[in-house]
Amino acid sequence: MRVHHDQIEVRTNGKGLYEITDEMQSEIDKSRVQNGTATVFVQHTSCSVIIMENADPTARHDLEEFFDRLVPEDEHYFTHGSEGSDDMPSHIRMVLTRTSETLPIVNGKMQLGTWQGIFLFEHRRAPHRRKLFLTIMGE
Amino acid sequence: MRVHHDQIEVRTNGKGLYEITDEMQSEIDKSRVQNGTATVFVQHTSCSVIIMENADPTARHDLEEFFDRLVPEDEHYFTHGSEGSDDMPSHIRMVLTRTSETLPIVNGKMQLGTWQGIFLFEHRRAPHRRKLFLTIMGE
Amino acid sequence: MRVHHDQIEVRTNGKGLYEITDEMQSEIDKSRVQNGTATVFVQHTSCSVIIMENADPTARHDLEEFFDRLVPEDEHYFTHGSEGSDDMPSHIRMVLTRTSETLPIVNGKMQLGTWQGIFLFEHRRAPHRRKLFLTIMGE
Repeated sequence: MRVHHDQIEVRTNGKGLYEITDEMQSEIDKSRVQNGTATVFVQHTSCSVIIMENADPTARHDLEEFFDRLVPEDEHYFTHGSEGSDDMPSHIRMVLTRTSETLPIVNGKMQLGTWQGIFLFEHRRAPHRRKLFLTIMGE
Repeated sequence: MRVHHDQIEVRTNGKGLYEITDEMQSEIDKSRVQNGTATVFVQHTSCSVIIMENADPTARHDLEEFFDRLVPEDEHYFTHGSEGSDDMPSHIRMVLTRTSETLPIVNGKMQLGTWQGIFLFEHRRAPHRRKLFLTIMGE
Repeated sequence: MRVHHDQIEVRTNGKGLYEITDEMQSEIDKSRVQNGTATVFVQHTSCSVIIMENADPTARHDLEEFFDRLVPEDEHYFTHGSEGSDDMPSHIRMVLTRTSETLPIVNGKMQLGTWQGIFLFEHRRAPHRRKLFLTIMGE
């Protein structure tokens, strides 16, 4: 059994989904782990990680629109907003989605379903450099 | 330390919760892992996994009703719907819940609380065969 | 590779966030695991675990207010409520957040981002003793 750690950096350019499936599989290839798990952990509180349909961009568009409506920027009761009107909604959107996700690895490959991709979900408008920590465990 | 993989298939017959606690414990029994973790990973983007109250069916009914209201099928801004009006809501409901869940195993048993059960949460109306990937790691 | 288990108890005194970051790091110190993962698992269906901004209390206040509004106690269609009006909302708020979270450990330390803290999210008004199961795996 081995533990392999790595950090992935994603440069974001506004709200939306940024696919990281290939970067994750590359790290698994490097680790040479054949059977085990890959855990991706987001080291921020204003973006998150999700597994989503990766074939049709309209699905991602509708998802983003839903979150913009579910957590609007101008809620009158928001008191936390030192970094702008997208500050507090970004924390809430992160809490409603995920900070970590654990995926199975068999014969060196993540066992994603046919339509699944792994995405960083950016909730801030300004460009950011996002850090994701990857832990690959197995044999 | 060992890694044990298995796939569970669940046949769903419309929206709702389908308990998989016993199937998961059976796989753990087969693996003979005594101490470690069990990770369940959903290989689809229109159903999810949750841990929920398993005693009172009214709690599950209310939960389903809440999700039907939070993510209605007829949002005017939805553009993704090639598979019908429950297509886009099913992706959103999946994102709002979970794709993977990791549970502790001690002395060969999952350490669930008294009222906890593990459920596949189906978001599509039509019957489906759903695949859940189980990774049991430990000693 | 080793597996280290422990249970953390948190005494809550009403709805809100209770930080458990230090307790988790203490358990990791005790385990002497240097590289691996820590999985925290909530053994209840009316509270949850989240990773959240731990610097500014206004962010936590706004988050709690958001959840109170997203899942109000007086939805007319709720049928499950034997334990009071905060019973059913607590299950829904749990499902919308998380039951387990897996964090990377490098050189004996959890790899949290600068502003991240780990919190028990209590959804019930009455005081409770909450049990969180911690599994530390690694070498």
